[in-house]
Amino acid sequence: MNRRAFLGTLAAGAVAAHHRLFAQPQAALAIDAAALRERIEALSAFGRPADGTFVDGVSRVAYTDFDVAGRRYVMDLIRGAGLEPRIDPAGNIFARREGAEPSLPPILFGSHIDSVPQGGNFDGDLGSLAALGVIDACNRAQLRTRHPLEIVVWAAEEGVAFNRGLSSSRIVAGDVAPSDMEQVWNGMRRGDAIKKIGGDPERIMEARRPKGAWHSYLELHIEQGGNLERDGLQIGVVQGIVAIERFEARITGFANHAGTTPMAERQDASIAAAQLTLAVREIVTGHPGRQVGTVGKLELSPNAPNVVPGSATAIIELRDLSVELLKTLAGEIRERAAAIAATTKTTIEIVPASSNAPAIADTAVQDVIERSAKTLALSSQRMPSGAGHDAQMMAQLVPMGMIFVPSIGGISHSPKELTRWDDCAHGANVLLQSVLALDKV
Amino acid sequence: MNRRAFLGTLAAGAVAAHHRLFAQPQAALAIDAAALRERIEALSAFGRPADGTFVDGVSRVAYTDFDVAGRRYVMDLIRGAGLEPRIDPAGNIFARREGAEPSLPPILFGSHIDSVPQGGNFDGDLGSLAALGVIDACNRAQLRTRHPLEIVVWAAEEGVAFNRGLSSSRIVAGDVAPSDMEQVWNGMRRGDAIKKIGGDPERIMEARRPKGAWHSYLELHIEQGGNLERDGLQIGVVQGIVAIERFEARITGFANHAGTTPMAERQDASIAAAQLTLAVREIVTGHPGRQVGTVGKLELSPNAPNVVPGSATAIIELRDLSVELLKTLAGEIRERAAAIAATTKTTIEIVPASSNAPAIADTAVQDVIERSAKTLALSSQRMPSGAGHDAQMMAQLVPMGMIFVPSIGGISHSPKELTRWDDCAHGANVLLQSVLALDKV
Repeated sequence: MNRRAFLGTLAAGAVAAHHRLFAQPQAALAIDAAALRERIEALSAFGRPADGTFVDGVSRVAYTDFDVAGRRYVMDLIRGAGLEPRIDPAGNIFARREGAEPSLPPILFGSHIDSVPQGGNFDGDLGSLAALGVIDACNRAQLRTRHPLEIVVWAAEEGVAFNRGLSSSRIVAGDVAPSDMEQVWNGMRRGDAIKKIGGDPERIMEARRPKGAWHSYLELHIEQGGNLERDGLQIGVVQGIVAIERFEARITGFANHAGTTPMAERQDASIAAAQLTLAVREIVTGHPGRQVGTVGKLELSPNAPNVVPGSATAIIELRDLSVELLKTLAGEIRERAAAIAATTKTTIEIVPASSNAPAIADTAVQDVIERSAKTLALSSQRMPSGAGHDAQMMAQLVPMGMIFVPSIGGISHSPKELTRWDDCAHGANVLLQSVLALDKV
Repeated sequence: MNRRAFLGTLAAGAVAAHHRLFAQPQAALAIDAAALRERIEALSAFGRPADGTFVDGVSRVAYTDFDVAGRRYVMDLIRGAGLEPRIDPAGNIFARREGAEPSLPPILFGSHIDSVPQGGNFDGDLGSLAALGVIDACNRAQLRTRHPLEIVVWAAEEGVAFNRGLSSSRIVAGDVAPSDMEQVWNGMRRGDAIKKIGGDPERIMEARRPKGAWHSYLELHIEQGGNLERDGLQIGVVQGIVAIERFEARITGFANHAGTTPMAERQDASIAAAQLTLAVREIVTGHPGRQVGTVGKLELSPNAPNVVPGSATAIIELRDLSVELLKTLAGEIRERAAAIAATTKTTIEIVPASSNAPAIADTAVQDVIERSAKTLALSSQRMPSGAGHDAQMMAQLVPMGMIFVPSIGGISHSPKELTRWDDCAHGANVLLQSVLALDKV
């Protein structure tokens, strides 16, 4: 089936599925919210600070002993659900529940359980354990889906190790070379790291999967921003994962004595950097939309109290779903930089540093998620994801959709990361209903 | 003689001296400009980069072997002028030419020969070698002054070593304790460093000199700023060395994900730091005068491209002769910081970090210098010194004056530091005439 035909079928099928579900409500088909909470709490113990409790968050960095222990805990849960976990050569954990029609491709859903250092208890964990909750719910209802269901715990999503980001789902999407296994991080070869979590670096190229390897991919995740909470909404229907453009601004002035150089004669790189920092914010907020722009990194040189700074480098990061808008913003920033350089008697080069394409969520899958939320009487809105996720790799292979639930205060990558237990259960139920709806296609 | 009486005598005496010089021009009483140039060029070889030439500047950091060799070269010159160099316990080199009236205190003049790393050939060297030129000129004219003349090469003026600044003239002014000798820099004990250059750390307290130890102190120095060159003037009559006030601005926002945190909800410390940096400049330039203000040092945290900066620290440095004006500026900066904190949803603490009092040049000595320039048909202006000098320590003991000559492009502490040879000679001649005028008092 080509993509266009697939999408047509998907949309029509989803409407049909919704009507069927609505017509025949299945009381048993719900997530066990208590079990979900219990498992999130139990998982948080692997990598918890010594003498800490749940609120102290977790440091379960990929490939560490805590990561290995957390993965073992989750694999035991998978076995408890009657499935056999399989670790692919990249270290990703998959488990398959057979469907009624063996010729159909599986529906894939899941997330990750590795964390940033001093991270929170919900980022990744919620989506991974909710995927298991979907399997449990189907088991309890003795529901035989048409498609096989496949759950996944992606390895090393946070990009802390080996500095690649999203590394193991990236491998599945095809971005890997045997020489990658020679990368070294914290004194550990990447191949050895992958072996440590049960992968097989010598067969790493076999971890790659072709387009269409699955029917579709779904991921439940905490928002990591404050939009849903602020607007009092329960579910975010992700439109896609934003493109990220980074530029390095290289500002050159003239370093001089801070006591003897009159104000009018300075070529002060810190003044230029300050003006540019404010210009980025002004330009980004000068357009309607949810785009963001950040100057998160800035270095002055020589960075001494008694020297007028001679140079500065700043990283400008822009994010939005629309590549067109990012181009417009970058153009305006370049123009403004030229004006700032002229008035501050500096030179400013704006050099592209990195560029990540957006990953658009399949619109039919978005419709399925939105209707599932409505079926469950949950409020929702469509929104971009400003953060990166494994889902963006999967979007290269299969129709992808993501479900967001509110992050209190928008805080993430922090022990203070928090999502209400009710919202965790809401998100897991939307995942369950979306899987069932997709299965009807 | 109390200070007020001294000043009166000084002013009246200087006028008389000027008239006497004018009435009886002494052709022999001039600096040997060729010798001055030759010696500056010769001194520049001690600490010159390998295979470099004069234009490559010098790294003659205090207490290094280059410093020791440069000092030896200067002491040989002093002996060649018929004087005996004496190293005080702090490592400063003094040499005395007797006067006709042994009961009178000596007139002291000189500068330093240590440099910053990758410094220039004029900072300190000009004043040190011009002082020797004054002795030579008196010798050639067989002129017997009334006061003894004493020349000085201060040790370790640049404050590179042991992180104290102006360290050896500071010791003479009394700011020293025996325990200071235990400081360590680059693996070297300060006492051993002082011993290396011929000082005597065990008698360090004897390096202190009382108020009135000399009749007066004069120092010729390059401007290190671009005012004289810009205004086409030959001589700067220094009004004093500015006060320096430093504040640490501690900005606290909230670190958050640069992709998921909407612009409106950020508490971005880099935005607050940028606004504060620009505010400092605006406030400092909003008052008439020569005051300067600099944000030379800024650190963002966590300083990562994908994180909205959660905190920032900046050093704000303000310099002016007027302590009152600095208080006004600091007050305005505090007010503005409070406003910036409110609009950026951050907190900003402005904490005093260090405070150096101004050193005012004696107004009668300023008059002497100004008249000497006029006698020599050199244009001049009164101006503050934005940089620190040994003269500011001497101002604590005796009436002090400083003579500036133009720095091309205002560049200093750089191999590009340059003063025209004519201007070097002009400055040395003003020093000579000022010494002679002071001697008449």
